[in-house]
Amino acid sequence: MDNTVLLDRISTDRLQDLAQQLRVDSVRATAAANSGHPTSSMSAADLMAVLLARHFRYDFTDPHAAGNDHLIFSKGHASPLLYAMYRAAGAIDDAELLSYRSRGSRLEGHPTPRVPWVDVATGSLGLGLPVGVGLALTGRYLDRLPYRTWVLCGDSELAEGSVWEAFEHAACHELDNLTVVVDVNRLGQRGPTRHGWDTAAYARRIGAFGWHTIEIDGHDVTEIDRAYTEAAGTAGQPTVILARTHKGRGVAAVEDQQGAHGKPLPDPDQAIRELGGRGSPGWRSSRPRSGSGRTRSGLARCTCGADVVVLDGEVSDSTRTQCFADEHPERFFEFYIAEQQMTAAALGMQARGWTPYLATFGAFLTRAYDFLRMAAVGRASVRVAGTHAGVSIGQDGPSQMALEDLAAFQAIHGSTVLYPCDANQTARLTAALADRRGVSYLRLTRGATPVIYEEGGEFPVGGSRVLRPSTDDQVTIAAAGITVHEALLAASQLTARGVSARVIDLYSVKPIDAATLRQAARDTGRIITVEDHWAEGGLGDAVLEVFADGTDEILPIVRTLAVREMPGSASPEDQLADAGIDARAITSAALTLARA
Amino acid sequence: MDNTVLLDRISTDRLQDLAQQLRVDSVRATAAANSGHPTSSMSAADLMAVLLARHFRYDFTDPHAAGNDHLIFSKGHASPLLYAMYRAAGAIDDAELLSYRSRGSRLEGHPTPRVPWVDVATGSLGLGLPVGVGLALTGRYLDRLPYRTWVLCGDSELAEGSVWEAFEHAACHELDNLTVVVDVNRLGQRGPTRHGWDTAAYARRIGAFGWHTIEIDGHDVTEIDRAYTEAAGTAGQPTVILARTHKGRGVAAVEDQQGAHGKPLPDPDQAIRELGGRGSPGWRSSRPRSGSGRTRSGLARCTCGADVVVLDGEVSDSTRTQCFADEHPERFFEFYIAEQQMTAAALGMQARGWTPYLATFGAFLTRAYDFLRMAAVGRASVRVAGTHAGVSIGQDGPSQMALEDLAAFQAIHGSTVLYPCDANQTARLTAALADRRGVSYLRLTRGATPVIYEEGGEFPVGGSRVLRPSTDDQVTIAAAGITVHEALLAASQLTARGVSARVIDLYSVKPIDAATLRQAARDTGRIITVEDHWAEGGLGDAVLEVFADGTDEILPIVRTLAVREMPGSASPEDQLADAGIDARAITSAALTLARA
Repeated sequence: MDNTVLLDRISTDRLQDLAQQLRVDSVRATAAANSGHPTSSMSAADLMAVLLARHFRYDFTDPHAAGNDHLIFSKGHASPLLYAMYRAAGAIDDAELLSYRSRGSRLEGHPTPRVPWVDVATGSLGLGLPVGVGLALTGRYLDRLPYRTWVLCGDSELAEGSVWEAFEHAACHELDNLTVVVDVNRLGQRGPTRHGWDTAAYARRIGAFGWHTIEIDGHDVTEIDRAYTEAAGTAGQPTVILARTHKGRGVAAVEDQQGAHGKPLPDPDQAIRELGGRGSPGWRSSRPRSGSGRTRSGLARCTCGADVVVLDGEVSDSTRTQCFADEHPERFFEFYIAEQQMTAAALGMQARGWTPYLATFGAFLTRAYDFLRMAAVGRASVRVAGTHAGVSIGQDGPSQMALEDLAAFQAIHGSTVLYPCDANQTARLTAALADRRGVSYLRLTRGATPVIYEEGGEFPVGGSRVLRPSTDDQVTIAAAGITVHEALLAASQLTARGVSARVIDLYSVKPIDAATLRQAARDTGRIITVEDHWAEGGLGDAVLEVFADGTDEILPIVRTLAVREMPGSASPEDQLADAGIDARAITSAALTLARA
Repeated sequence: MDNTVLLDRISTDRLQDLAQQLRVDSVRATAAANSGHPTSSMSAADLMAVLLARHFRYDFTDPHAAGNDHLIFSKGHASPLLYAMYRAAGAIDDAELLSYRSRGSRLEGHPTPRVPWVDVATGSLGLGLPVGVGLALTGRYLDRLPYRTWVLCGDSELAEGSVWEAFEHAACHELDNLTVVVDVNRLGQRGPTRHGWDTAAYARRIGAFGWHTIEIDGHDVTEIDRAYTEAAGTAGQPTVILARTHKGRGVAAVEDQQGAHGKPLPDPDQAIRELGGRGSPGWRSSRPRSGSGRTRSGLARCTCGADVVVLDGEVSDSTRTQCFADEHPERFFEFYIAEQQMTAAALGMQARGWTPYLATFGAFLTRAYDFLRMAAVGRASVRVAGTHAGVSIGQDGPSQMALEDLAAFQAIHGSTVLYPCDANQTARLTAALADRRGVSYLRLTRGATPVIYEEGGEFPVGGSRVLRPSTDDQVTIAAAGITVHEALLAASQLTARGVSARVIDLYSVKPIDAATLRQAARDTGRIITVEDHWAEGGLGDAVLEVFADGTDEILPIVRTLAVREMPGSASPEDQLADAGIDARAITSAALTLARA
């Protein structure tokens, strides 16, 4: 039996009933939690009811089915509506619905993939739409499956630049498998949005980017249904449905009222009565779309990297991802200078089981820091390569230098931070990230560095390499990346001065090799850390943290060398010298420390 | 003598000569430096020649003149062109031009305010335009002066979401004092841009946002001149001039060629001959615009905060900046959910001597991290308040929690990071930031906390408050913000268990009160740090760094308590308990440590 035929039989009345039921459950969940965003849920209830009943192809019993559609709540604060949909579909029971926002519940204040039907965490506005673009790209170019991606946006979040990166990218790729529904309820958190109910203002803008636009009354289920059908039937263009709605729709006390954002309704029982009382759930799961794509099972990991996808931010010549593009054009994606869209696309791709690596200058990853933070909230696995780290890039000056990247990436929950110092180590660590869960960061140096390691050497994540160890070492120099070479030079200079120095290559900044550092503390009592990064949050802090769990009996004297003044333009060598992180500076610090 | 009359006499030939001179000097500067972006400069030379000669009102001998126009090179890599303009205007001499990118030169690879004619550092694409919006807002609404703001953008950077935040904001504020010139040279760093020379594609998009658009041949000085005149004469709308140009214009070896980005020309001498040889500079400075605005001098700082401006990211009800808006609507700016534009606007405002404070949820400041990093590169002074810090926000869940903000802001060069724990302290520290240079961050808690300090108390930046000190203290608890209250509770619990604990309120996380911490190390030998932040880059690391300059004779045993698992939704109290940063956890850690 074809699903479409079945769904045609659903009457308008039943759609309206379903919408009211979603509203009631949004009210109930937020009342039970005594927090949350019922009014932001109620405005979009009709939109989601029609989607769930008639257009969303999804088997809730099998969230990983390849043909399942994808639904992203970019307005993540409307999570009560999403969870109400799950209840209506029978995916969760009433007791779980009412556990909303309580300790231990997977129904968090904003959706996360702790719930199996959620692809990515949302709640930072402006993120869901570019992730949707990533899923639509995945469907079209990687999975090659006919699933559709649906994104529910708020109107407020259209002020975020990230959504315009997404509008541009989706239209240029003619992603007609993507439909964005904007719940234009005209009220943001603190008051009216800039454009209010002027959906034409949005349509002009989004239309100019090449989207098909439809403006509707977002509470008229017939108009909504027609819009979805039109969206699905539009070829060569993504569609945005701009739906005029009322925040808090259906309950007079809050409908279209300011000051009702992010609060449970004042009188939930009255509200439920006003909405027609508690309905009973029972929307059954529809079937995924069928199609013969490149499903995950068809791409076994044993085919060695066949699920690796590379994303570029218009610097593939500098980052050298062009080599991958030449060999695997079908798995290379150019995002131009749009780091947020690039990162969000990686989130979408990994949600479908692909293994994305994205690369740009490390400095410009700061543009996507929110999305990387949210990647961790969403338990996503993405691999990020940041090139042009530190002052050693030389003449281009500080705007192009990643000097805060170690701090930023270490502060992402569950992250891995690697910082190789030569080509062979880089190759191995790059490969190692494929199997790494969470957000991984590979910090890369711009210039050519000497090759000090054997090809194919082992560099386990969480390990280190101890160079020049000796039992009578008087001082340890802990370095990574470009400073490893300076440290080796310093160690030679120190030998000439009668000081024996151990050098540790801490290529794994997080997790760090605590055992080796503790051994060094015992052996030498003195550790100098040296890094091409600001003094805050980098390698030095990572080393200090090893000795800060209150258990160590031997605390080493530590001296951290790092960049402490704003650099200008200069040669790489001069930059390292001026920052006090070159061999000479290390030698000087080591002599002082060794004699202390 | 009216300047306009004078300029009308300049012949087309002389404009072309000036343009060629700018090209020649761009080639010479990059050849001398053996690095830089001559081709990106050459494409825009005609555009900038006509601007400099005929439309830009600026007294190079008095860069702080209130009536000066503002010119922002959003494509900061075209700095050779900017410096060539300075030479043409007689602001720098030839020797300085040729110091480009050399050690110590203020003519860095990308412009910074080390050069007095530069308002803000650029070089991270997508930043200059929103800063230009900030300057135009300042001219219109704060300074109330007739100066114009001109922004030179590259075409590649129109892929950045931040520029669309700017297009939206500028049009909605009808900033007809803003003109954006897009150098559509069709070639990005790695190859063709998405839209190539299709200026109509850009015009449709930007026009839909409400801008006046003009498409021209960017090498035709007559068309350029006419476009500037049209822009200046357009009322109620900002204007974008979309200029089709050739990258590397004027030198056959590189003109419109791929692979010529960011490199000195292969044969500079030949190129200079091809461009007509070295001209001689001698463009004299034009006069600033005159007008009676609210100039800086009219707003003496003694009028107590009269230069304070508050910027909101659509959360003024939560951050409580609404109070300021109610009292000073003329100095309150709503940016809706567009953190990049909000931050960039602050950069523009401070460049004109205003004292901007911007506020939103701390978590969402990650959206503007690149701009905050660039603020430091540009020696800008902006004050940032981030609310809803840490797990203690409770039910909303991790997407709304600032848990990496201490790391991110500490890693901004020259930053100040403050974290008050009660209302009186917050008031004093907020006021203290007005006089603070650089990027300042005020971390704020969502919930109500007990008031423990006297009204009007002194809380110097770089200081701390020692609570419950005693000569026989056995352990020190270093806390800030919400954990101060947990620490005080723990200290009471510890007293009951026979352990005397000193509590230090480290409200100044950066700079930190090293002397007080060293005293605590001497007195107690044991320090517990406790923070509502990830373990990386926060308060704990800041404390550890105090003892990492290699000089300390007494190293304390340190134990860092911080958030180490991804939180979900729960009550604030449960969140603190689950993260192991509540009074009970502190007490337990202190007992262990005190007995170690």
